[in-house]
Amino acid sequence: MNIQIFDTTLRDGIQGANVSYSVEDKLNILRSLDKFGIGYIEAGTPFSNPKEQRFFELAVQRRMRHARLVAFGSTHRRGMTAENDEACLALLSAETPAVTIFGKSWDFHAQEVLGVSNAENLEMIENTVSFFKSRGREVFFDAEHFFDGYKNNPGYAVDTLIAAQRAGADKIILCDTCGGCFPDEIHTILSAVAKKLNRPVGVHFHNDVGCADANALMAVKAGADLIQGTFIGIGERCGNTNLSSVIPSLQLKLGHHCIPEENLPNLTRTANRIAEITNIIPDSSLPYIGRNAFAHKGGMHVDGVLKNPTTFEHISPDTVGNSRHFLVSEVSGRSAAVNILHKLGSNVSRTSEETSLLINALKQKENNGYQFESAAASVELLALKALGEYKPTFSLIHYNTSGRMPVTDGENSATALLKIRVGDSVEVTGAEGDGPVNALDMALRRALEVFYPRLKNVRLSDYKVRVMNPGAATAANVRVLIDSTDGITSWTTVGVSTDIIEASWLALVDSMEYYLLINTQTEDSAAEEMFFENDHSHS
Amino acid sequence: MNIQIFDTTLRDGIQGANVSYSVEDKLNILRSLDKFGIGYIEAGTPFSNPKEQRFFELAVQRRMRHARLVAFGSTHRRGMTAENDEACLALLSAETPAVTIFGKSWDFHAQEVLGVSNAENLEMIENTVSFFKSRGREVFFDAEHFFDGYKNNPGYAVDTLIAAQRAGADKIILCDTCGGCFPDEIHTILSAVAKKLNRPVGVHFHNDVGCADANALMAVKAGADLIQGTFIGIGERCGNTNLSSVIPSLQLKLGHHCIPEENLPNLTRTANRIAEITNIIPDSSLPYIGRNAFAHKGGMHVDGVLKNPTTFEHISPDTVGNSRHFLVSEVSGRSAAVNILHKLGSNVSRTSEETSLLINALKQKENNGYQFESAAASVELLALKALGEYKPTFSLIHYNTSGRMPVTDGENSATALLKIRVGDSVEVTGAEGDGPVNALDMALRRALEVFYPRLKNVRLSDYKVRVMNPGAATAANVRVLIDSTDGITSWTTVGVSTDIIEASWLALVDSMEYYLLINTQTEDSAAEEMFFENDHSHS
Repeated sequence: MNIQIFDTTLRDGIQGANVSYSVEDKLNILRSLDKFGIGYIEAGTPFSNPKEQRFFELAVQRRMRHARLVAFGSTHRRGMTAENDEACLALLSAETPAVTIFGKSWDFHAQEVLGVSNAENLEMIENTVSFFKSRGREVFFDAEHFFDGYKNNPGYAVDTLIAAQRAGADKIILCDTCGGCFPDEIHTILSAVAKKLNRPVGVHFHNDVGCADANALMAVKAGADLIQGTFIGIGERCGNTNLSSVIPSLQLKLGHHCIPEENLPNLTRTANRIAEITNIIPDSSLPYIGRNAFAHKGGMHVDGVLKNPTTFEHISPDTVGNSRHFLVSEVSGRSAAVNILHKLGSNVSRTSEETSLLINALKQKENNGYQFESAAASVELLALKALGEYKPTFSLIHYNTSGRMPVTDGENSATALLKIRVGDSVEVTGAEGDGPVNALDMALRRALEVFYPRLKNVRLSDYKVRVMNPGAATAANVRVLIDSTDGITSWTTVGVSTDIIEASWLALVDSMEYYLLINTQTEDSAAEEMFFENDHSHS
Repeated sequence: MNIQIFDTTLRDGIQGANVSYSVEDKLNILRSLDKFGIGYIEAGTPFSNPKEQRFFELAVQRRMRHARLVAFGSTHRRGMTAENDEACLALLSAETPAVTIFGKSWDFHAQEVLGVSNAENLEMIENTVSFFKSRGREVFFDAEHFFDGYKNNPGYAVDTLIAAQRAGADKIILCDTCGGCFPDEIHTILSAVAKKLNRPVGVHFHNDVGCADANALMAVKAGADLIQGTFIGIGERCGNTNLSSVIPSLQLKLGHHCIPEENLPNLTRTANRIAEITNIIPDSSLPYIGRNAFAHKGGMHVDGVLKNPTTFEHISPDTVGNSRHFLVSEVSGRSAAVNILHKLGSNVSRTSEETSLLINALKQKENNGYQFESAAASVELLALKALGEYKPTFSLIHYNTSGRMPVTDGENSATALLKIRVGDSVEVTGAEGDGPVNALDMALRRALEVFYPRLKNVRLSDYKVRVMNPGAATAANVRVLIDSTDGITSWTTVGVSTDIIEASWLALVDSMEYYLLINTQTEDSAAEEMFFENDHSHS
């Protein structure tokens, strides 16, 4: 059966603690989800603040490959109609092809929270859905608290759905807003509701009893054909249905169709990329995509898997782009490596020595905490080294940084002193900055520009820091990702160290060297293209 | 119904990546689990190494309040009998009141992995179980790969259970060893098996499709009366059934009895204590016990919960010893601020001057890039200031940090020099570290511990960095979040600056001051003392 996947990472996901996206972050996630093959992307509430407004202005102009963009809003306020409720008008003005309207399905909450009668609540649902349908929108109706409401007053809960259906809602979504329902309840209630509506519904679950994924799967067994969720399960409290778990369960194990078949091996890297943008470390034990999802520890387990993978693996890890932990070079890694080497103009094969050299270099760095999914420029530099074509652009003699507090007015809090060699020349530079990394960045630029004037075109556009073994706190390994641009192309590099300055330094050096040694001519980010290596048709 | 809880944190839990316990760790976890009221604790394989041997020697002498100690082993090796298999004899010699014997239920694996015929496998099960029964042990039979085996050859899979039952096994445990089964399959298979065995079984699940908790709950619905799991879901690959989720679901929501009623409010601290001993940070979104399990972010959600908690909470957090908190963010407002002030013992109203002062302070900081939703400790310090009750614990005279590259062997890459004043005393300290933040952290601790020795209890447990205005790259505003713990409670603080060292400094100072000014004698810690420390009868 076709199951529609409806991602709400950009809307319900940001209700999660510590989740906050810039406009650029949201556009990047939108693009990753679309490329992966998600059908609907609910991306926020357009009128809620200027950032959201700006995002929607840009997002509606995007040409999407698979996804339809959805904006989120509620039924009109009490005592109004959708035509004169400014929130509804703002939602309309976002001009997304689809909108979600949420409304109350639990009579008690309509009265308690909205302060309206049961009849008024039905009118609000019907009027608002009609309003958007008559303006040509595809309309999803989110029935908030549906399951709890149904347990308390099944007749009224179903009436709210019928009101939305009568008004022309394209799909009704049953929500377990508090996340306290169990799979058998979901199955029973859904089966009963299906008889009243005569068409398949969608579902939205939270994980407060640890059943958000199971509930989604049981809902499909009971006839639901649309699953809402977030990409790695982020969301308020205990999070939402995790699409990176549910999609492979449905498609690989239960025979349904959710995304284009050929994209499933991009699952793990898509999840990691979204986590990276969200600046969170995905739990290593997450189903399918977790670092340890196919990690085998016990000797007996390792032996068992080597004899026959079915002993301790329910699926083959490469079907979702993940890998078994004790194997050094799996097939997908080798294909990716060959792909990168070809991109640099080489014509090595899967069995060439250069391919093995690159794979080993990547594995070794990954063991030290590197993660290359979003740092393709650093990967290309490693590939250049594997091909024996890398020539260092400079060598560091030493750097020293210093920081201080308090800082007097007009002074900077940090300084850096740097000495490098290029050929027979030595250059010593110094700089002040806002923090030691900024000072070091400026000192390095000053020194390198003496030899490579075109570096003046390059500026850093993003700087992300991630702590990898958080238990060690300020002595933990730190991974720095740096995005750079020359105004035409952009690229991402990575550095890892226990010292944040050194990690930043390594990423900075890769950034400069990538520009000087490889500098692609493509319009779009080479990094992004390589990340989705199966995908050559895009822009 | 009475459901037996069978914890295997100390056996299957250590199959998880990065999990490793000392003898003392294992004894501490044993004690916590027993006090919490767990019925069976499977604690390891006695003969596997000297550490396990030593642990079992000590553990069997413990007088337990609720739990029976279980040792784990397998059916005897092929071509032997239990009487002459040294592994079986070693298991017996551990003298635990109960043992688990695992055996193959999937004929294909008996042949493939053990290299025995179907008949031999049945004999191995029966002989081994009989051996331990005749020596007075309570015997659990773990039917490895039962569900996958049943799908392939139901008749033989059930035969293995009957062999164990015939030999006198006290309880048969059906295992989903690869973790790939779904709740409806579990329900169907268990219902069929129940008819063949005529008595309730136990179950053991892994989380490879995200259904380990749901499967346990559905198994109970199908008649199972024993649940195996680990305390925060740790275990090989994607982990095991999470007992800290399943116990409250069964007992609070489904009307079963698992542990003494009065112990349920100890759930959250028991889970945190086990996580602490395991040296992992429990995922903040874990059901029931997670830091954010009852965290509310959106203003609408905060208002809703304040009007009526059932709007966004499926249970009351105090029933499991957790607490509600409001993530202070751009979107939450006055209600949240009043709530925080009340928590500090004040009785201000929504219109009090103190409330306005706090809101303005939060807004101003948020405009500068602060984000308070997970940094409640920093918010409480601001609230203390708004109430006029804040007294600084020290003042900074100055600090200086330095970093360098390259670093010679055995040297650190950074140093910090610090001078602070407390009252009339001045303290100057210095430290080396992995990076300037680590060095500064150590120098500050050294200086403050002179005046406040109890800061020795405090350590940082996590350190997060986020760049806020990424366009400015290395000169961007940096937000640092620091999690700290004294082993009993934990708290989070935040600092923002363009200089990552200063941002870290601000979060560090808040962390120390929160511990000294606010966290001093909370009820929580007192309760914790009573729960974990005042009990000397077991040591």
